[in-house]
Amino acid sequence: MAAAPRFDDARLHAAMDQAGLDAVVAVSLENVYYTTGAFIITQRLLPERLAFNIIPRNGDPTVVVCKIEESLVVRDSPIKDVRTYIEFAHDPADQLADALRDKGLANSNVGIEKRYLSASSYETLTGRLPQAEFTSCDRLFERLRAVKTPAEIEILQQAARATERAIQTAWAATRVGDSEKTVADRESTALLGEGADRTVFCMLAAGTNTLVAHHTAGDKRLQQGEIMRTDFAGSFGAYYADVARTVAIGKPNQRQSDIYRTLWEVQRETISRMRPGITAGELYEHCRVRAEKAGLEFNLPHIGHGVGIGLHEYPMLEPRNDAVLEAGMVFYVEPMVIDRATGAFHIEDLVVVTDSGPKILTDVMDTERLVSIDSFG
Amino acid sequence: MAAAPRFDDARLHAAMDQAGLDAVVAVSLENVYYTTGAFIITQRLLPERLAFNIIPRNGDPTVVVCKIEESLVVRDSPIKDVRTYIEFAHDPADQLADALRDKGLANSNVGIEKRYLSASSYETLTGRLPQAEFTSCDRLFERLRAVKTPAEIEILQQAARATERAIQTAWAATRVGDSEKTVADRESTALLGEGADRTVFCMLAAGTNTLVAHHTAGDKRLQQGEIMRTDFAGSFGAYYADVARTVAIGKPNQRQSDIYRTLWEVQRETISRMRPGITAGELYEHCRVRAEKAGLEFNLPHIGHGVGIGLHEYPMLEPRNDAVLEAGMVFYVEPMVIDRATGAFHIEDLVVVTDSGPKILTDVMDTERLVSIDSFG
Repeated sequence: MAAAPRFDDARLHAAMDQAGLDAVVAVSLENVYYTTGAFIITQRLLPERLAFNIIPRNGDPTVVVCKIEESLVVRDSPIKDVRTYIEFAHDPADQLADALRDKGLANSNVGIEKRYLSASSYETLTGRLPQAEFTSCDRLFERLRAVKTPAEIEILQQAARATERAIQTAWAATRVGDSEKTVADRESTALLGEGADRTVFCMLAAGTNTLVAHHTAGDKRLQQGEIMRTDFAGSFGAYYADVARTVAIGKPNQRQSDIYRTLWEVQRETISRMRPGITAGELYEHCRVRAEKAGLEFNLPHIGHGVGIGLHEYPMLEPRNDAVLEAGMVFYVEPMVIDRATGAFHIEDLVVVTDSGPKILTDVMDTERLVSIDSFG
Repeated sequence: MAAAPRFDDARLHAAMDQAGLDAVVAVSLENVYYTTGAFIITQRLLPERLAFNIIPRNGDPTVVVCKIEESLVVRDSPIKDVRTYIEFAHDPADQLADALRDKGLANSNVGIEKRYLSASSYETLTGRLPQAEFTSCDRLFERLRAVKTPAEIEILQQAARATERAIQTAWAATRVGDSEKTVADRESTALLGEGADRTVFCMLAAGTNTLVAHHTAGDKRLQQGEIMRTDFAGSFGAYYADVARTVAIGKPNQRQSDIYRTLWEVQRETISRMRPGITAGELYEHCRVRAEKAGLEFNLPHIGHGVGIGLHEYPMLEPRNDAVLEAGMVFYVEPMVIDRATGAFHIEDLVVVTDSGPKILTDVMDTERLVSIDSFG
């Protein structure tokens, strides 16, 4: 388990003042971890086992958590006030309402993650505290988390490099005639060997299967002359890695090599523009124009995403997003080329935005040219 | 990917009539899959990419889904009316409101999964359709899904047996001095080899680490005289397996053998009572009384859970639950014994309730006595 990020009270307090909030309540696994340091994995596996962290603008936070998870929070979080509920006996939203009232917040403007909190819990909460005003604070947390600490950047880079090494290891053992599932399983096994906790998803496809958005690796066998694409995500403690690579089965033909090379150039030119001040939408637009100038069809919903405790974090690199890139933001940048005849070409790399420009953090594999799977053996 | 369950319109319509609903809206990955046959994995990975299935009491269903997922739904679902939204450009809840209005449901009583739908989407929906009444239908879906089809029972048994075989394979390679993480990774690798899509969690702990509820397998090495516990869940298509086993590192001592044997007897006697008509709470109570009679400390929040498209499905085997067991319900039954000095002993087996009594579906490993890890080599 990676160390908790150094959560910065001053930045949160400034954001709360700007939004006019008397308190914020973290609800999701991601924000409970971000604000407490305790990674409660059952929040993902058993979504009904709710956990909350109430952070008042003035005063100390209070965690409300299932009795089963108390020991974890006491061990991993510096927060002293940990209240518990008994699963099935108590409604966690009732306990949250009690805690808010106890903390003098029953008539306050309380930020809460409305995109995560269920409608059911929200009805309980507003029924119990009719004088409180509940405001969405999803975006507030997203913005805080978007700028990473040096320790977080280090974790993300280590995870990304480990994922690259796992792909290399798996591909070194791969031959024409292997099934997609065999190669995918090799990647997952190698990822565990590199220290990951688990595979989050392992998209692996060959030939025209690469065109299916979320293809499940199956019995299809690798054939000479095809391309193979993997989009491979693992969890390392609370953080994610998410790397995509494309390879040829046997010597690539000229058309395959050319498409791949153009994709690589488009990706690198897009990355070169990732400086503080550009918006996500402007970056997307640069990528689109550059790709179309190269004769590529381009209709991707996004070309990349922030990453951290979440797999797709704010800001998404999508056309309508006016979020401004800042130093310390970390992205996976992943334009694709869809060639109906050949398949989908895909490269995804980790980039940190710094005051002196972008820095690519995935540096284990050389992605400059489309190579044959044989070159890994 | 496992075949979609044979979803039974008649049972759903009867439940809707009983609840006085004009329509129900599936929101969660589980219920969208259950009612459409399309397994949209991104609903789990990217929760903001919402999907809905509107099922009116009279008339045909309508799916509302992100444009990216349209091809999957068209391929895997018999539902003809599939509407799409563009991610980031449209609010999916707005599209849901439009579809409900188009279907003449703007003034109706609409069941929706309030435990899953976000407060944010719910506010959009109620703002757009102020004349509609939205009622929670979470429990309605839970009850439908609780009774499995023969095809589902077959999938669940295959998945459970595959998980047992994976544990056997991993343990056969395991020796004193191996680290917890090494053994856990062996289990995950073997599970993929048995056909699983991925490990959902792999709790594996030795010695007193077994006492930590959600311990992450780490550097700790297996020592002679300890017990080792695994609680191991994988996904097989849309379905889950979740098996727990306990083993001794070297020859178990008398105390370890006795505690384990008592746990096994308590589990088997509890299972023997799983006939149609008993309530979940009564079953829990039988287990508690039997365990305490044997001198065991007993304060578990539950002793098992339904399983299927969800990992913990209705009904939970917990003390306050008056849900009645029916033929076709499938459970993982997992009482534990916490011995502060030695560790936590844990067995978890898959059981189907039939008209002629309970049937244990996990039959690969012999769990009757605590054995040494050496016996697998």
